[in-house]
Amino acid sequence: MYTDLPEAELRAYRSALREPDDFDAFWADTLAEARACEGDLAVTPLDSPLTGLDVFDVAFPGFAGQSVRAWLRVPRGATGRLPTIVQYVGYGGGRGHPLENLLWAAAGFAHLQMDTRGQGSGWSRGDTPDLAGAGPQAPGMATRGIEDPRRYYYRRFLTDAVRAVDAARRLPAVDPGRVAVLGHSQGGGAALAAAALVPDLRAAVAYVPFLCDIPRAVTVTDAHPYREIRDYLAVHRDREEAVLRTLGYVDGVAFARRAGVPARFSVALMDDIVPPSTVFAAVNAYRGPVELAVWRYNGHEAGGIDDDAAALDFLRTALDG
Amino acid sequence: MYTDLPEAELRAYRSALREPDDFDAFWADTLAEARACEGDLAVTPLDSPLTGLDVFDVAFPGFAGQSVRAWLRVPRGATGRLPTIVQYVGYGGGRGHPLENLLWAAAGFAHLQMDTRGQGSGWSRGDTPDLAGAGPQAPGMATRGIEDPRRYYYRRFLTDAVRAVDAARRLPAVDPGRVAVLGHSQGGGAALAAAALVPDLRAAVAYVPFLCDIPRAVTVTDAHPYREIRDYLAVHRDREEAVLRTLGYVDGVAFARRAGVPARFSVALMDDIVPPSTVFAAVNAYRGPVELAVWRYNGHEAGGIDDDAAALDFLRTALDG
Amino acid sequence: MYTDLPEAELRAYRSALREPDDFDAFWADTLAEARACEGDLAVTPLDSPLTGLDVFDVAFPGFAGQSVRAWLRVPRGATGRLPTIVQYVGYGGGRGHPLENLLWAAAGFAHLQMDTRGQGSGWSRGDTPDLAGAGPQAPGMATRGIEDPRRYYYRRFLTDAVRAVDAARRLPAVDPGRVAVLGHSQGGGAALAAAALVPDLRAAVAYVPFLCDIPRAVTVTDAHPYREIRDYLAVHRDREEAVLRTLGYVDGVAFARRAGVPARFSVALMDDIVPPSTVFAAVNAYRGPVELAVWRYNGHEAGGIDDDAAALDFLRTALDG
Amino acid sequence: MYTDLPEAELRAYRSALREPDDFDAFWADTLAEARACEGDLAVTPLDSPLTGLDVFDVAFPGFAGQSVRAWLRVPRGATGRLPTIVQYVGYGGGRGHPLENLLWAAAGFAHLQMDTRGQGSGWSRGDTPDLAGAGPQAPGMATRGIEDPRRYYYRRFLTDAVRAVDAARRLPAVDPGRVAVLGHSQGGGAALAAAALVPDLRAAVAYVPFLCDIPRAVTVTDAHPYREIRDYLAVHRDREEAVLRTLGYVDGVAFARRAGVPARFSVALMDDIVPPSTVFAAVNAYRGPVELAVWRYNGHEAGGIDDDAAALDFLRTALDG
Amino acid sequence: MYTDLPEAELRAYRSALREPDDFDAFWADTLAEARACEGDLAVTPLDSPLTGLDVFDVAFPGFAGQSVRAWLRVPRGATGRLPTIVQYVGYGGGRGHPLENLLWAAAGFAHLQMDTRGQGSGWSRGDTPDLAGAGPQAPGMATRGIEDPRRYYYRRFLTDAVRAVDAARRLPAVDPGRVAVLGHSQGGGAALAAAALVPDLRAAVAYVPFLCDIPRAVTVTDAHPYREIRDYLAVHRDREEAVLRTLGYVDGVAFARRAGVPARFSVALMDDIVPPSTVFAAVNAYRGPVELAVWRYNGHEAGGIDDDAAALDFLRTALDG
Amino acid sequence: MYTDLPEAELRAYRSALREPDDFDAFWADTLAEARACEGDLAVTPLDSPLTGLDVFDVAFPGFAGQSVRAWLRVPRGATGRLPTIVQYVGYGGGRGHPLENLLWAAAGFAHLQMDTRGQGSGWSRGDTPDLAGAGPQAPGMATRGIEDPRRYYYRRFLTDAVRAVDAARRLPAVDPGRVAVLGHSQGGGAALAAAALVPDLRAAVAYVPFLCDIPRAVTVTDAHPYREIRDYLAVHRDREEAVLRTLGYVDGVAFARRAGVPARFSVALMDDIVPPSTVFAAVNAYRGPVELAVWRYNGHEAGGIDDDAAALDFLRTALDG
Repeated sequence: MYTDLPEAELRAYRSALREPDDFDAFWADTLAEARACEGDLAVTPLDSPLTGLDVFDVAFPGFAGQSVRAWLRVPRGATGRLPTIVQYVGYGGGRGHPLENLLWAAAGFAHLQMDTRGQGSGWSRGDTPDLAGAGPQAPGMATRGIEDPRRYYYRRFLTDAVRAVDAARRLPAVDPGRVAVLGHSQGGGAALAAAALVPDLRAAVAYVPFLCDIPRAVTVTDAHPYREIRDYLAVHRDREEAVLRTLGYVDGVAFARRAGVPARFSVALMDDIVPPSTVFAAVNAYRGPVELAVWRYNGHEAGGIDDDAAALDFLRTALDG
Repeated sequence: MYTDLPEAELRAYRSALREPDDFDAFWADTLAEARACEGDLAVTPLDSPLTGLDVFDVAFPGFAGQSVRAWLRVPRGATGRLPTIVQYVGYGGGRGHPLENLLWAAAGFAHLQMDTRGQGSGWSRGDTPDLAGAGPQAPGMATRGIEDPRRYYYRRFLTDAVRAVDAARRLPAVDPGRVAVLGHSQGGGAALAAAALVPDLRAAVAYVPFLCDIPRAVTVTDAHPYREIRDYLAVHRDREEAVLRTLGYVDGVAFARRAGVPARFSVALMDDIVPPSTVFAAVNAYRGPVELAVWRYNGHEAGGIDDDAAALDFLRTALDG
Repeated sequence: MYTDLPEAELRAYRSALREPDDFDAFWADTLAEARACEGDLAVTPLDSPLTGLDVFDVAFPGFAGQSVRAWLRVPRGATGRLPTIVQYVGYGGGRGHPLENLLWAAAGFAHLQMDTRGQGSGWSRGDTPDLAGAGPQAPGMATRGIEDPRRYYYRRFLTDAVRAVDAARRLPAVDPGRVAVLGHSQGGGAALAAAALVPDLRAAVAYVPFLCDIPRAVTVTDAHPYREIRDYLAVHRDREEAVLRTLGYVDGVAFARRAGVPARFSVALMDDIVPPSTVFAAVNAYRGPVELAVWRYNGHEAGGIDDDAAALDFLRTALDG
Repeated sequence: MYTDLPEAELRAYRSALREPDDFDAFWADTLAEARACEGDLAVTPLDSPLTGLDVFDVAFPGFAGQSVRAWLRVPRGATGRLPTIVQYVGYGGGRGHPLENLLWAAAGFAHLQMDTRGQGSGWSRGDTPDLAGAGPQAPGMATRGIEDPRRYYYRRFLTDAVRAVDAARRLPAVDPGRVAVLGHSQGGGAALAAAALVPDLRAAVAYVPFLCDIPRAVTVTDAHPYREIRDYLAVHRDREEAVLRTLGYVDGVAFARRAGVPARFSVALMDDIVPPSTVFAAVNAYRGPVELAVWRYNGHEAGGIDDDAAALDFLRTALDG
Repeated sequence: MYTDLPEAELRAYRSALREPDDFDAFWADTLAEARACEGDLAVTPLDSPLTGLDVFDVAFPGFAGQSVRAWLRVPRGATGRLPTIVQYVGYGGGRGHPLENLLWAAAGFAHLQMDTRGQGSGWSRGDTPDLAGAGPQAPGMATRGIEDPRRYYYRRFLTDAVRAVDAARRLPAVDPGRVAVLGHSQGGGAALAAAALVPDLRAAVAYVPFLCDIPRAVTVTDAHPYREIRDYLAVHRDREEAVLRTLGYVDGVAFARRAGVPARFSVALMDDIVPPSTVFAAVNAYRGPVELAVWRYNGHEAGGIDDDAAALDFLRTALDG
Repeated sequence: MYTDLPEAELRAYRSALREPDDFDAFWADTLAEARACEGDLAVTPLDSPLTGLDVFDVAFPGFAGQSVRAWLRVPRGATGRLPTIVQYVGYGGGRGHPLENLLWAAAGFAHLQMDTRGQGSGWSRGDTPDLAGAGPQAPGMATRGIEDPRRYYYRRFLTDAVRAVDAARRLPAVDPGRVAVLGHSQGGGAALAAAALVPDLRAAVAYVPFLCDIPRAVTVTDAHPYREIRDYLAVHRDREEAVLRTLGYVDGVAFARRAGVPARFSVALMDDIVPPSTVFAAVNAYRGPVELAVWRYNGHEAGGIDDDAAALDFLRTALDG
């Protein structure tokens, strides 16, 4: 059932999000610091039972140069530099198993699937630690360090997302001029951030992106992971201002206002995990051209394989052009 | 948590299932009738965005010669006859989308994924009708025609499963001497039936198979789909005997007693959809050699991709030998 | 609690339902076909422990002439032709047990309670099969054949409802000029259809009728049975248009626009199974005179026995006049 | 699913209930006190729309002579004294509406349906107050006055049950030598009490009786109404002994040990409101002949109309003999 | 999540509550009657392990002179008359244990915590019976005697609340000129009543008060205890008018219109037990000065210890002035 | 209801826990390392509204010398060294608010309530970060670093617990020879660890202690926080051995085998968060004298204030002796 705004109001909805004044400086500094760190890019071929694809275990320097893992999947026997998809995954998951998620490489792309620091135990496995201590927090990642923008978990995660693109471009199989970012939910939030923070991508695909219009999100759903933030504020009653300020640095609406590459979004009108108004908040703020799929009868699974099939078309156009 | 028997008792558990006296004749007649029906095998290449695989839309004659759909996926450019996996899917799902489920063909097998008649609207799409009227039933498939073994839904479905193997062997990409069957849950039940009813398969893989030791199953879980049978009996209080007799013709324990090919099972000790005792009932009744994976902390998802990876190894051995 | 529109808006609510252009032709053809079919009317007296009522097992020709069952209950020793109530039952139920539902005959009416094809296993028993195969569907009846109006389950069920009136009029105990239709929920939807499609009834009683303003219903409740339709659309994402077109042929709002006999509706403001706005959609579209009971604090049980008592008064007036 | 003992253990289960030493004196005194009270028996004919039955509003003196209401339903035009059923209703309900519950009179019996003091607001209406103050209690009736046997709610209710039989025998339509008691759940508990405390009944029917083997019941189900007692003990941690002592005076196992008339019980193996072991505790303790219906796939609804149909047969035999 | 009105509308919300015409006379008579009753004030020192506080078991005459219990806690060794807090507790609880709730006396106040008649078994213990019989009711207190204002449970409870202040002023440790009332939820409702009915208090503290704007409350939440009233009306469908009239005598909005002492309220925007609009209804109707704490991310726990800390400041000012 | 073993089996239950061979060395090294770290003990008086108690904000060096916060509450004006209770709190909570938890100091003890690193956002606030990065984990603390005993969260937390005692003994208000430890749930697990690892305590109080017999616990409850470990193992299917080995270093059964001071335990037979068998595992393994409270009708709240009152008696004896 619909629990958010009526569809007509959704389509017109604009977020009142106020970004911190130093938003751009914050991210410029953050990325400069990360890029200044040492850190190796390691690519290890995997002995897999696959005959049509090659899979590589990648380790690249992320936030603070910390090593972040990824899978690289490429069509077997591909030569030359390929159009490339960098993928970020949803909340709770990690890069998973090398035998999962074969679609993108089977369709002829180089496909770099970034692991998620400190997650990877909820529905798919991960292998990357989150090397930072944390103050008091609600269970989960969404409040780890939330009272200080510089110590907030999502600063590290989004920096990893940008650095994954940097790393991809250094891989022999990747055509650095033809890179797109893609993700579901939390991964969609990361794709928006990368689209804003990396100047020369070719496209972004954000399925039901998490982390958009967060101040509204935490009041219109009780579901996790937004619930973690609400739970934190329910206990730390005097920290609303500090918490909302921190969240302003990672809100997808702010990234949407800055991103110019063609983007494909999907939104589900019965989504109670990522409320549709929060997706429209990003869509309606997006600076570049937008293609939008509205799924009227779906929850957070949104378009599923239908989203993937349409994304393949969208990316073929964007990356082959 | 564990709600079924303790692990030691599970490992020793044997079902008290009584098969109908005419079990073998019932299936011999059923298959003979089905094979006597007309019905074309149609194979239509699909225009897909995949570059590493070819996908074909297959229609083959199933129960009563009715047309049943399937996807055939093969490595692009494969020549010669391939070792082949015939897959059946879980309850509520259909053959899904051609871009899903790429693992088996990406690993070099021919992969025929059978649609499920009348289902295919719960979590993956299907395209095959169930051409049979039905008496009063609980919502779902598990009680459609349940008072008469010859009109029961699962007689039709399991016949389709056997006929899918027959069809696979007629496909140019398939080596008819190297065919295995595989499935999860309801699909695992189908794999057991095919292993018993098709004499010359090479292997069977049954992940947390549904439809085993049904008289026990309906008393030890409240979850769907076994719940459908309980709900039927709760309303049709005087039909217990007839219903249990019908179920005796489709119980995986009976098929296990007859199947001789090497089989790989998986069972999850926290599975409340397919209770582990019902899987052990089939495992402990299986006539041929068994490889068993016990997942102590999983529910019905069981080993997931870990099951797949192990199944790939198992099938490589079984089909390449 | 109230989850639908505020009461003042409910009272003014008008559905935007668009009927298919050939709605009237569709039903005229459908009924003509059904009436052209062969089929016997069988009436078998039951040996029951009741001393005040006689109960008969009735079989009459429904859709496509298929045999549909019913109970006929009449006051013992009644002579002459009686005012008559034809009743349809709610989703999941069948005609139940002959010893149930004694009120109407105990109040002096002839009472024909129609069985529901293919249902009758959810909360009361049924004895009538649904003799039609079906394509992929969600569990339950509401999506069986939903992509084709001519194959949709509710075309068959509503035709049965009309044919039940036809059959009633041929029974010796029934005064064919004094027949009313009545039902709860799905049965209320059937009563509306009969009121529209049978020209010379005397009255209709629809308690919290199902199947009204369906396009809205599937977006304002998550509860079954409307949920079945949503679930179907969530998987078959590309079939919204076809599905809504089919539903347009069975929507109670369309029937309400055509029905002229006096009608009594009930609606419950806390009903989350049949949302009150969908009932007001039918009430406010109804062509004939309407008596409406609004239950402010009830869910789908609505007025219960209070609805029955008021319906008895309403029907006495309507049928005795 | 089954959550209580396995069926074989259920059939052998015997309660360890210890009755208070003065159990018999307690009830003898209680009934003597009640019978010594003044109090009128009033019988008022109702103007109902029924043509086959007559309904009377009855008020009779119950515990402490307090007025308790009931409905008397008799076949219209019946002459002479009829075999009679006195019915008690389930927890939360009252005598309901005169137009409900027509089966017994339609089958030729006089039928006195007793109201439940202080309840009658949960699923059917009641009209009888509980004229007694109460100490601290959990919401509901099951702990009202629970720390003192003489002030406990169920002392009053069960006394009403006995006095209802006394009253019935004074009604002109009732044959005082042919009276049976009947009830579901709480009403079944009352029927057991009446069977033990009224010497010359002809039969008792107890469907899934509540209030049997209470010390076990409160540890094997979390469902209401047994939950009320558990909740009370969870707060009043030091009152276990006093509470269990009080409950010993109203436990159906104690009544079963004393009742000699033929009894029909029903039990449902998936009943989580009245756990089946607690019913078997009464069945296996019953002094007189027992007929038992075991419903393997039902919850607390047990045999429903099938129980009623069988009870009609049982009562016909018992009351017509 | 927010399920009530948006915050801006909440802040402007005004209840349409219509009070009975004789509201003031009703309460004047009720209190006059109560004060005319005999009844002793007993104060018994407790032997507790506390070294910093003294605790006394108090019994005072409440409604109809019935004995109501309370705990009095005072700083050990305090001499002279102290500023005093009279506290009422939330639904289901009683005065609890003498070792609980030490904050107020540890902060230097005399603290009289009133028991709740007939409750005290839900989450904290009570020792006070409700000496009144009751007609049919839903489980719980909120419908006990609800059809007659003079027999309604909350008439007795609120009279106790006023009489607790009367009693406090007679205690040697209490400065009768410096008394405030305080409570959470149901206790907040009592504090509002006392603030309106006792002319010379110094302050009132109502945390998320229950019993305000009840006609709205029962339609905007399904949670207990408001649910009890809805459940009653769902069964007693014809009693809406009588029930709403009775509730008009105890509604906190009516008391707020009459109370002039400084008040501190708290409201929680995610409270689904006491919907925030019903608290704003009282806040916006309050005749005296109001201090309001709005907790945006909390449910019914509201400000918890933060509310207490702020209340301490508020009361220090109000009582020391 | 009871879902664990029957009471008689509980009382006899002994855990099969195998401790790692180097268990004692592991803890000796860990504590030696911690004690070797620098780190100040800071005690800051708080300006509170309390008149009977003094509250101090304490910071002491915990694991790796990291600063851990605590509240110290003492009777106002106390002179000399007091018997002292060091308290650890339950999962998700922190040291809370200085105005909470006044009982122990009001009873004359010095009371040091340790904060919980990285928690303190679930139900009470905390102020202490967990200064350690973590690998992939399930949301919550129970799997942070779980694959390596030296990096596991509970190694740090339990070291803090020991160091809190060390710190307490350096406080002027504390009599170092009269210190007891106390905690609920997770805090009870910490009390057991401290009782084993600190040689010269006087007593330990463990209410429904968490972290005991963990291998069993994760298979007999689905509730959090044990659920976190199960969820981790459900995804990291190949890590069972490593995970169970790590848990062996923090299991309360191992600590119980080593602790000799008098201990008071409580256990609740309806506890589904800390299953009673896991508490009996610790009780039955405890080396020293045990006092045990068994609460038959409670869940995880166990004896609540009744546990506190009894603990006060127990501690008075133990600490005053």
